[in-house]
Amino acid sequence: MNPTLEIFSQGEEIVTGQTVDTNAAWLSQQAFQLGFTVTRHTAVGDKLEDMALLLMDIAQRADCCICTGGLGPTSDDLTAEAIAMAFHRSLQFDEIAFAQIQRFFANRNKPMPESNGKQALLPEGADRIDNAWGTAPGFSLQQDRCWFVFLPGVPSEMRAMFLATIRPTMNHRFSLNPGKLITLRTIGIGESDLQERIKSVAIADAVQLGFRADSDEVQVKLLFPAGYAKIAITALISEICEKLGHYIFSVDEQLQVTGGLVSVIDRLMTEGLHTLSAIETASQGLLAAKCLNLPWLLEMRYEQSLKKLGEKLAVEINFDDLMTTAKALATATRKNSEADLVLVQLYAGNKNQFYDKNQAISLFNVLLHDGHFKEATHTVAGPAERKQNQAALMTLDLLRRHLQPSLIVPGSTDK
Amino acid sequence: MNPTLEIFSQGEEIVTGQTVDTNAAWLSQQAFQLGFTVTRHTAVGDKLEDMALLLMDIAQRADCCICTGGLGPTSDDLTAEAIAMAFHRSLQFDEIAFAQIQRFFANRNKPMPESNGKQALLPEGADRIDNAWGTAPGFSLQQDRCWFVFLPGVPSEMRAMFLATIRPTMNHRFSLNPGKLITLRTIGIGESDLQERIKSVAIADAVQLGFRADSDEVQVKLLFPAGYAKIAITALISEICEKLGHYIFSVDEQLQVTGGLVSVIDRLMTEGLHTLSAIETASQGLLAAKCLNLPWLLEMRYEQSLKKLGEKLAVEINFDDLMTTAKALATATRKNSEADLVLVQLYAGNKNQFYDKNQAISLFNVLLHDGHFKEATHTVAGPAERKQNQAALMTLDLLRRHLQPSLIVPGSTDK
Repeated sequence: MNPTLEIFSQGEEIVTGQTVDTNAAWLSQQAFQLGFTVTRHTAVGDKLEDMALLLMDIAQRADCCICTGGLGPTSDDLTAEAIAMAFHRSLQFDEIAFAQIQRFFANRNKPMPESNGKQALLPEGADRIDNAWGTAPGFSLQQDRCWFVFLPGVPSEMRAMFLATIRPTMNHRFSLNPGKLITLRTIGIGESDLQERIKSVAIADAVQLGFRADSDEVQVKLLFPAGYAKIAITALISEICEKLGHYIFSVDEQLQVTGGLVSVIDRLMTEGLHTLSAIETASQGLLAAKCLNLPWLLEMRYEQSLKKLGEKLAVEINFDDLMTTAKALATATRKNSEADLVLVQLYAGNKNQFYDKNQAISLFNVLLHDGHFKEATHTVAGPAERKQNQAALMTLDLLRRHLQPSLIVPGSTDK
Repeated sequence: MNPTLEIFSQGEEIVTGQTVDTNAAWLSQQAFQLGFTVTRHTAVGDKLEDMALLLMDIAQRADCCICTGGLGPTSDDLTAEAIAMAFHRSLQFDEIAFAQIQRFFANRNKPMPESNGKQALLPEGADRIDNAWGTAPGFSLQQDRCWFVFLPGVPSEMRAMFLATIRPTMNHRFSLNPGKLITLRTIGIGESDLQERIKSVAIADAVQLGFRADSDEVQVKLLFPAGYAKIAITALISEICEKLGHYIFSVDEQLQVTGGLVSVIDRLMTEGLHTLSAIETASQGLLAAKCLNLPWLLEMRYEQSLKKLGEKLAVEINFDDLMTTAKALATATRKNSEADLVLVQLYAGNKNQFYDKNQAISLFNVLLHDGHFKEATHTVAGPAERKQNQAALMTLDLLRRHLQPSLIVPGSTDK
């Protein structure tokens, strides 16, 4: 039997629906992968008694509970008080926590507001969890059956603290037998198409198959039970890779190629000593923004008016042949750039079509390398933000396909 | 006292974190706006006993509960069984529900799978809720203190059924007096500073004050009870605005200035017939990306190397005086641009400092308009993505402060 784990989210913004509780989902995935059985999520608002009653219940029924939120400096941050009430523990001043909070403000050249002092009050017997990312220290404590972990509700802080401190501890505290979760990441193909492509693959009943679409990729997830034969895992992954061909860009926990699209591209650009110059239109800065701080992106240009861009680069714009225009813009950009790779993204359609979630736009992507062009056209649909994001991804994916021609499965049938 | 309401979400995909529970947030917003006090969200997986125990608890403690999920045709859809177990109600065949399910498949020229027949079994004494959007009928029932509503988990079906059937019913079933929620949006100031600044403002006990920080803004939220005097609301909002001065950029539900930072800027740029040219460094495309599809952003330039940027614009770069350099870059950009406003963002620090979450970078922002400069420096800290986002926001905020000089409160003391 796996140990059981619950998630407890605290905050008026969650129960009133102003914030979607993404923390609970993220933490559940982590706990699940570690080998816990996640039994329940609960969210309550800023009511001291509700919180205390819930904590008392959880202390009896779960082996572990991760709580987020309510550790801030303001008067509606009540988690420590709720613990004091529920478990009859006094709140004690933690000097190290106080010094860390002071340092947080000192590093930012700001005086520490008095109210932040409250964040250094921790329940009696709790172990402090340092927060290098914000002012709220976390803490953990054992109460009856349950090991409670309290983390701030700010997702970036919560995640960083969980990964740095909690996850490593859990392997010591609990007897965990996680299965093996392998994630195949794809781009440019939908969930139902994925399912269709792999339906002829025989997957044993013991293996759990799932799909997950997020804004940047669609994942195929395979959960193998603990002790599943390694050779059988490899064979199954290879067969699925073959079916999916070039839509796959990384396989976590299996191939050396892991991570999101940008980190795959980053590795390939760095290994090949490549540099890139880009022109964005539909993605309007988001392509560059996704490549944050990566040294191989030398320059990016966004120009609202294609006509104006043509004037500046001395390229004649042919609105009836955007692919040829994109190639001419790439050639002109290459001349004034040190980069060996040039990406140009154009699209057909006006601002109204772009904004209308019921209308699609056509995307024309060109990659210039060593005097040769690669090109791709895509239809991008949905609300404006989705079009923007898809455009950035599709343009980057042209680069990825160029750099990673047949990496994953030699026998891929995808062109 | 408002009636209390809980949300109960059922599904293994939620407790294991594969699906983020957006239904709970959406339903909570609806309930809150109707005048309920939402007290708790709970999610459990496909365990019959867990579900039954939770239903029994809720029947005692809440006035209303909306449950989603578990109404489908497969073996892991257990909601009706859990109700039968918890409340000792038999499951009865509902002829009208069965006919509706049959019609759903007939309309699609598909045979009805046998398993869908199970969806026509409703707990004794329940009122059927027709589902014109899918196969799963919903139902409602009164048990002890609580009126339970059961809806399918598919968001589109759930929302449509709630709006068509449940919301109108609630106004009859409950005595509802919705309050008024006013949100003041700020930028450039932290939660604790906000609280510090307004602590001298007298706020009646009946008014609920809250703070909410997300990645792009910090909100001050005021919830006024139903029937609170309009003049008292206006007076309180004005007083808070005065304390917060130029950190406030919009007040929902009160002033005409509403929405996020970019939409406030969009309105001001459009009204003033302004256009903008920008140079980004630290935000690397994200500033432009935030202004997606807005016609007044004429062009944006990102250049990895400041030296190279200087060469291209024939500006001498002084690394020891980035503010003067930013002004020279703005002047040079203005010469080649049709835009009447130019924003330049530079930062001190190398890539390692940028990536190191423990190191801060200094941001130098310049706005050029009509031959005059406005400038602002900021210290930006945290992980690289946070620095990027803060840089984009701080640079945009210089533009907002220029365009919106003393809009919100004439007597603002903030410079």
